[in-house]
Amino acid sequence: MPKTPKKSPSKKKARPTPPRPTAPVSPSSKAWSGRLAATDPAVEQFTSSLPFDRRLYAHDITGSIAHCQGLHEAGLLSEEETEQIRAGLAEIEEEIRHGRFAFLPTDEDIHMAVERRLIERIGPSGAKLHTGRSRNDQIALDLRLYVREEATAIMGLIRALQQALVALAKAHLGIPMPGYTHLQRAQPVLLSHHWLAYHDMLERDYGRFNDGLKRALSLPLGAGALAGTNYAVSRKRLSELLGFPAMTSNSLDAVSDRDFVIELLSASALLMVHLSRLGEELVLWSSQEFDFLELPETFCTGSSMMPQKRNPDVAELVRGKSGRVIGALVALLTLIKGLPLSYNRDLQEDKPPLFDAVDTVKSVLVILVRLLPGLIVHRERLERAAGDSLLLATDLADYLALKGVPFRQAHAIVGQVVRYALERKKALTVLSPAEWRRFSKQFGPDLKPYLTLQQSLARKAQPGATAMSQVAARIKELERQ
Amino acid sequence: MPKTPKKSPSKKKARPTPPRPTAPVSPSSKAWSGRLAATDPAVEQFTSSLPFDRRLYAHDITGSIAHCQGLHEAGLLSEEETEQIRAGLAEIEEEIRHGRFAFLPTDEDIHMAVERRLIERIGPSGAKLHTGRSRNDQIALDLRLYVREEATAIMGLIRALQQALVALAKAHLGIPMPGYTHLQRAQPVLLSHHWLAYHDMLERDYGRFNDGLKRALSLPLGAGALAGTNYAVSRKRLSELLGFPAMTSNSLDAVSDRDFVIELLSASALLMVHLSRLGEELVLWSSQEFDFLELPETFCTGSSMMPQKRNPDVAELVRGKSGRVIGALVALLTLIKGLPLSYNRDLQEDKPPLFDAVDTVKSVLVILVRLLPGLIVHRERLERAAGDSLLLATDLADYLALKGVPFRQAHAIVGQVVRYALERKKALTVLSPAEWRRFSKQFGPDLKPYLTLQQSLARKAQPGATAMSQVAARIKELERQ
Amino acid sequence: MPKTPKKSPSKKKARPTPPRPTAPVSPSSKAWSGRLAATDPAVEQFTSSLPFDRRLYAHDITGSIAHCQGLHEAGLLSEEETEQIRAGLAEIEEEIRHGRFAFLPTDEDIHMAVERRLIERIGPSGAKLHTGRSRNDQIALDLRLYVREEATAIMGLIRALQQALVALAKAHLGIPMPGYTHLQRAQPVLLSHHWLAYHDMLERDYGRFNDGLKRALSLPLGAGALAGTNYAVSRKRLSELLGFPAMTSNSLDAVSDRDFVIELLSASALLMVHLSRLGEELVLWSSQEFDFLELPETFCTGSSMMPQKRNPDVAELVRGKSGRVIGALVALLTLIKGLPLSYNRDLQEDKPPLFDAVDTVKSVLVILVRLLPGLIVHRERLERAAGDSLLLATDLADYLALKGVPFRQAHAIVGQVVRYALERKKALTVLSPAEWRRFSKQFGPDLKPYLTLQQSLARKAQPGATAMSQVAARIKELERQ
Amino acid sequence: MPKTPKKSPSKKKARPTPPRPTAPVSPSSKAWSGRLAATDPAVEQFTSSLPFDRRLYAHDITGSIAHCQGLHEAGLLSEEETEQIRAGLAEIEEEIRHGRFAFLPTDEDIHMAVERRLIERIGPSGAKLHTGRSRNDQIALDLRLYVREEATAIMGLIRALQQALVALAKAHLGIPMPGYTHLQRAQPVLLSHHWLAYHDMLERDYGRFNDGLKRALSLPLGAGALAGTNYAVSRKRLSELLGFPAMTSNSLDAVSDRDFVIELLSASALLMVHLSRLGEELVLWSSQEFDFLELPETFCTGSSMMPQKRNPDVAELVRGKSGRVIGALVALLTLIKGLPLSYNRDLQEDKPPLFDAVDTVKSVLVILVRLLPGLIVHRERLERAAGDSLLLATDLADYLALKGVPFRQAHAIVGQVVRYALERKKALTVLSPAEWRRFSKQFGPDLKPYLTLQQSLARKAQPGATAMSQVAARIKELERQ
Repeated sequence: MPKTPKKSPSKKKARPTPPRPTAPVSPSSKAWSGRLAATDPAVEQFTSSLPFDRRLYAHDITGSIAHCQGLHEAGLLSEEETEQIRAGLAEIEEEIRHGRFAFLPTDEDIHMAVERRLIERIGPSGAKLHTGRSRNDQIALDLRLYVREEATAIMGLIRALQQALVALAKAHLGIPMPGYTHLQRAQPVLLSHHWLAYHDMLERDYGRFNDGLKRALSLPLGAGALAGTNYAVSRKRLSELLGFPAMTSNSLDAVSDRDFVIELLSASALLMVHLSRLGEELVLWSSQEFDFLELPETFCTGSSMMPQKRNPDVAELVRGKSGRVIGALVALLTLIKGLPLSYNRDLQEDKPPLFDAVDTVKSVLVILVRLLPGLIVHRERLERAAGDSLLLATDLADYLALKGVPFRQAHAIVGQVVRYALERKKALTVLSPAEWRRFSKQFGPDLKPYLTLQQSLARKAQPGATAMSQVAARIKELERQ
Repeated sequence: MPKTPKKSPSKKKARPTPPRPTAPVSPSSKAWSGRLAATDPAVEQFTSSLPFDRRLYAHDITGSIAHCQGLHEAGLLSEEETEQIRAGLAEIEEEIRHGRFAFLPTDEDIHMAVERRLIERIGPSGAKLHTGRSRNDQIALDLRLYVREEATAIMGLIRALQQALVALAKAHLGIPMPGYTHLQRAQPVLLSHHWLAYHDMLERDYGRFNDGLKRALSLPLGAGALAGTNYAVSRKRLSELLGFPAMTSNSLDAVSDRDFVIELLSASALLMVHLSRLGEELVLWSSQEFDFLELPETFCTGSSMMPQKRNPDVAELVRGKSGRVIGALVALLTLIKGLPLSYNRDLQEDKPPLFDAVDTVKSVLVILVRLLPGLIVHRERLERAAGDSLLLATDLADYLALKGVPFRQAHAIVGQVVRYALERKKALTVLSPAEWRRFSKQFGPDLKPYLTLQQSLARKAQPGATAMSQVAARIKELERQ
Repeated sequence: MPKTPKKSPSKKKARPTPPRPTAPVSPSSKAWSGRLAATDPAVEQFTSSLPFDRRLYAHDITGSIAHCQGLHEAGLLSEEETEQIRAGLAEIEEEIRHGRFAFLPTDEDIHMAVERRLIERIGPSGAKLHTGRSRNDQIALDLRLYVREEATAIMGLIRALQQALVALAKAHLGIPMPGYTHLQRAQPVLLSHHWLAYHDMLERDYGRFNDGLKRALSLPLGAGALAGTNYAVSRKRLSELLGFPAMTSNSLDAVSDRDFVIELLSASALLMVHLSRLGEELVLWSSQEFDFLELPETFCTGSSMMPQKRNPDVAELVRGKSGRVIGALVALLTLIKGLPLSYNRDLQEDKPPLFDAVDTVKSVLVILVRLLPGLIVHRERLERAAGDSLLLATDLADYLALKGVPFRQAHAIVGQVVRYALERKKALTVLSPAEWRRFSKQFGPDLKPYLTLQQSLARKAQPGATAMSQVAARIKELERQ
Repeated sequence: MPKTPKKSPSKKKARPTPPRPTAPVSPSSKAWSGRLAATDPAVEQFTSSLPFDRRLYAHDITGSIAHCQGLHEAGLLSEEETEQIRAGLAEIEEEIRHGRFAFLPTDEDIHMAVERRLIERIGPSGAKLHTGRSRNDQIALDLRLYVREEATAIMGLIRALQQALVALAKAHLGIPMPGYTHLQRAQPVLLSHHWLAYHDMLERDYGRFNDGLKRALSLPLGAGALAGTNYAVSRKRLSELLGFPAMTSNSLDAVSDRDFVIELLSASALLMVHLSRLGEELVLWSSQEFDFLELPETFCTGSSMMPQKRNPDVAELVRGKSGRVIGALVALLTLIKGLPLSYNRDLQEDKPPLFDAVDTVKSVLVILVRLLPGLIVHRERLERAAGDSLLLATDLADYLALKGVPFRQAHAIVGQVVRYALERKKALTVLSPAEWRRFSKQFGPDLKPYLTLQQSLARKAQPGATAMSQVAARIKELERQ
């Protein structure tokens, strides 16, 4: 039954307690044990972030070691205390790394678990570590260290995937394929050009992670709970120790800011959308209908029921995992929407989506880096498909336009030619001079050599276009980088 | 380096192998071991769903036992084989339940892990279990069994939370508070009426889970991989065995349908949005500025730095977790967008968001059911706030309207009264008859008794309105249910 | 420069104004003109909902006519006033319908625009209309009337699309095609079976709109601003007048509830995801590689540059528009996340996403209903693709299983046969009895007649499977409904 | 009834048409009129993008003028033709700008509308404009021009809002307020510090728009439909003419890339999340409970029913509109998920969410720039709230820590003091020296001057912290920029 004090609820609570003597700090007690009653175990479990934030332990300890050094240099910790704390933290890191650390249900989060253990190991000096610091600026630091590490890792993997694409482009140089718009065959392009399109998408992705990192690398430590601290610890020095080129300029913002998480997720979501397109194409191209390539057998899985199946599961999962990362981004944006300043506990929920997205993105990049070199391209199929004479219709219109027929009219004439050829089930390349001339007097003897796959490709010689010359030059340029 | 066969890639692969003699089925080999080369271990890890789908083991085994019974009744398994399989599956369930089951890296998913172990335990009979079944219909069944269990559990928790709200409403009956629009004090309402608003939201939530369940409880087993099966197993009988009131009517749809997951997530997202509003109000109301209530101390957490803090973390996390569930819904919708029929491996990615959302929703409901009864309401604060005479301005306009002044005009008159009173820092209730009459001749001696908090509340006596009579009746009605 | 009163800000405002005499209600003045200074025009524009909510005019007037009747029956409006209001509203509806209504910049929303005009037309009686009503319950009513109309329309269109699918299924009965999983050819199915899969998806969609409608049809009128009203207008009677089977049971909830919008958007998002799959398939199937069908020429568009193109734009747009509707759902969920009760102005933002989603969904359904009957199916291509003998591999495994070979072993044997045949570039159907027997002694002379496309289809004769018998029966059943 | 040709569908279509003589280009005919039958009007309406893309007309014409110049310099248009086209386009821009342009139902999009009109006005020269260009690269250009203009505008508005915040910070310098974590009073901060937190968020937002712009400003023109073009138009020259510092390096990517749209929406969504927090705080702070400030009367709206109301609608709408922009981002990510290269018609759906988001973001920034200077701050209320002695608890723990008590122990001691004081309903500042010493011998006579609001603030003198010295310096620094 709900408690509803008849008169004054505060009365009910007014059981003055005698002041207790100076409290010895029991290491297993909560950070706020002086003030509040013990927490309900169900609440402990509900609010605990340990199940997921424990993976930040190394970042947390890195931050604590720098903080401890800062306290020391500000005269707040003796040489001996500093040494004790540093050694204690190093040992705790080892314990956790090797699975020898016993987390307790009363450890609210990774910060308190480490501090609790530190006090157990080194006693009162350990209880000094949290001087001039709040978990609010501590987690902001840990997360930025995490984001620095992971964004850097992702950027490395993007580079590796770009290299794999460039290598594919180089290996496949000269193989034509039909380029598509609306998934309809449109104009011939080089397969290498197609691979390089993904290179360029990834280049922008790389830039986005990099730009986000610039903003992430701003030291929040020293913001305290929200207002700054009472101690003369040098934030500039802390920045140097931790390798941050900048420091936050507003303590309220520093503890309530998760932009760097959202920005990482935005970049990740768009990266995954790009990779979902690659996944889709690998699925399409390895279908019996396209049959442009095969995934290596070791990258396919079979069916539990259908013995003939060879499924492009990896490509499908790459495509599907984009949804999960978009979901993570939405989770974070929604999380922070409408929160007043400064820190709110809601922010604890930033971690599961972030960790899941980072793991997902990395696993997808890793598998693609392994997968791409093994692709078995069906060159003949691609050549045959690219040989479809309808793909030359645009060149045909350009042929007329170059002879002075206004392009819109040239387009209409060629449209009629196409219709004529389709109705007679003829390729454009086999129409006779007489047939051509029925559509336009401009069609001359130079048409025949003009109207070939190789010429069509060769003519697309503008920067960024699909001519062999351009694509080869681009590959060289990229290899040089 | 990418493999690009110079001429024909198929040539390269054309190393005819001599037919091998009838393959003995090694239990640890893949389901498709006859057809494909061994999978790359990185691919094995990337595509494995075991890390998350293992939690479906009980549902998987339940489905297999029914399937085995169906095979038996169709004459496809002997009595003895059936018994062996049933016993083997029951033992495997025990093994997994007690953590004694050794999952192998080559176990692609929970289905294959169970089948592999079954063959290990009982031999060739185990290899017959997958007759007339594909993992495509199997996972569709497992997921529906999971959704049935979890939706039912969530519905039970919704009912429990509704009861907690009704109990609060009953315990607080008679406590007035300012009702808010735009977070501005608007009109007096009963605190109980406020709690019951959440009851009504939850009632709709309950209905949505229930409606979704109707559609989820359609048996997919028998759809096979996509086309149905070659066996005369009775799907009707399977439905009975598994307690499904209906069965799917199209096999292609059956294996590619995840509507029941999305529908559970839609209902969950909206439920969480409702609970985020409750979370927001608990945060607001326990601020020093509102001070309408306190969370029980055992439900608060403190600060690692600020010794006086008593934070409503539970309420904040309830609010924040809504983002995560909305994210899960987005993940699923995006996942399935644009997929051709029928089963695609992308669908494997339905599980992590589903499981996470279900766990989140349940944990939030559980904690609120525990939290609400402990709320300490500050009755005096609420009464004082509700006594703000400006809250009676609408009643004042209605007073005039009931005397025949057109409401729009009455509203304007009262607006002027309000402005007049504010400028003089007077409560409306202390204006003199003379002052009133300067605004309208209609203000008479009956105004004074009319213009009280209690009368205002009592007059809202329409069904669904906030008068004590209505609220008490509603509580009775709800208690009866 | 910001105003920061040195001492007390309230001082600065304390310029007591003399009470003004009873305000004549100028129709063009704001609803709250007595209380507040004139609004800044930029604010007027920023907060105005007229640009989008004006489309609710008919619903608004319908609600007002019922409300006016309710007031009359409660003795709050005379017969004459009621008649005046009713006639005035009817005329205003005409004015708006025919574009003769002059909206003013000072009209905040459709409610105030109509009321303002009513007072202009009929004078003081018009000023009585808002008695016992707030815009909070009024817009809740208008939106529910809108949702009722539009959900009903969408359900009608779903039915029409289902009929188009059933008609297609009937017309195409007997045409085989390869069924796909992982976009790899899996087993033969009937094209009609494929169309009916969409029928079943739509059946669930229909159910969801219908279930949502149940909850939407609860009358909010009478909730007033948030607390209920002071008037004895019968809410039951209003429900009858407006055709609502139920009424809301909590006034706070009634004005802050937008579940019915979110539920409509959830149902719409999932419907659009289904249609995105159909769109994807139409795009795939009309590619040169699949070439299973053509969209009618009148449904294709060309290219401004490539004269040969015939693009399936309609199918692409159907697929793409799913994103927009998912976005609308996210907008609404985010909008309401974390809002305290009861009405908040944020809710005004529910309309643009709702309207856009409804328009989108309807346009997509309409165009598909027109498009489907015109599809030109390439029967020969489908038959040829379905004739791929590898599609019979599963049947082959079942052949062995039915002879007692454990299925898992049968699957492995057939896997080897498949590998053997592929390496020799032979179809399964041309292997000699001797070749068969090298893989299993169980392969007998009954294999040849067993291993045909027609037999494979015919064997899938379970309910919901793809055999002609089943599909034809299903079509009959659906036609009967 | 669906068309299902009994034998071969292509037969049915095989009505060979005689070649028509060279087609005169009727300006109102479709771009592809030579090839396809007339479009169904319902399809025309469904696929038309004119209702929304017409707002790109000026960008489209800008691009066309540059393209025409490029054609001229490449010798593809004569001086005279070039002049005719340029003049024609300029006139068309005028026509559209002044609403004198008659859009036709057959105008598919803004590109074709402009070209159609150009041909009407200037004849055959107009039909040459589309030489070497596709709508695929044309719309990619138009959109980038749009994004350049709008991102620049948004960045300007961000700067304006930052200035408004700095001006507020300057005007309010010296006003203390309680800083909050968990919406619980935490430590005193300066109101100016709070405003500057938003400045810093906006600084990052600015950076994101700017970074996105870098990537957006890459010229896609010359990519043609997907493969590049057959013409020697200098893309470098086009870049100069249009002010693009770079050009795309892959034509397939160029026509299928919408990263620049998504990046603008990502930056917008996060910006809106920031502003939603400001909106939330304005709502909270203008509640009767906080009463920290008032919105200017001209920025409030009233209630249609409750005459006393003064609602912070603008702040609420700012908060609510974040949902809409997040929804737009989701729409775009979902839109592009899983699309194969290169251009697909789905991309047309990028515009409505983009336009809506840009309009929303700009309107919100504009209104906030107007609103902030008018805020009426209740200095006394803020001072009183900041004077709450519990806000000094952290300083108290630091007092002990600076005397050598380990911080964790100091925190526990102060926790007990807080509990003691609360139970006795005493402020910390009135406890006697004897009382203090019962908790710790370290509490000395220097405690009294230490334990004041002003000293607490003054001690937070680290860079980024809330001391007046820091905040004033920061304001100066920002004013200088």
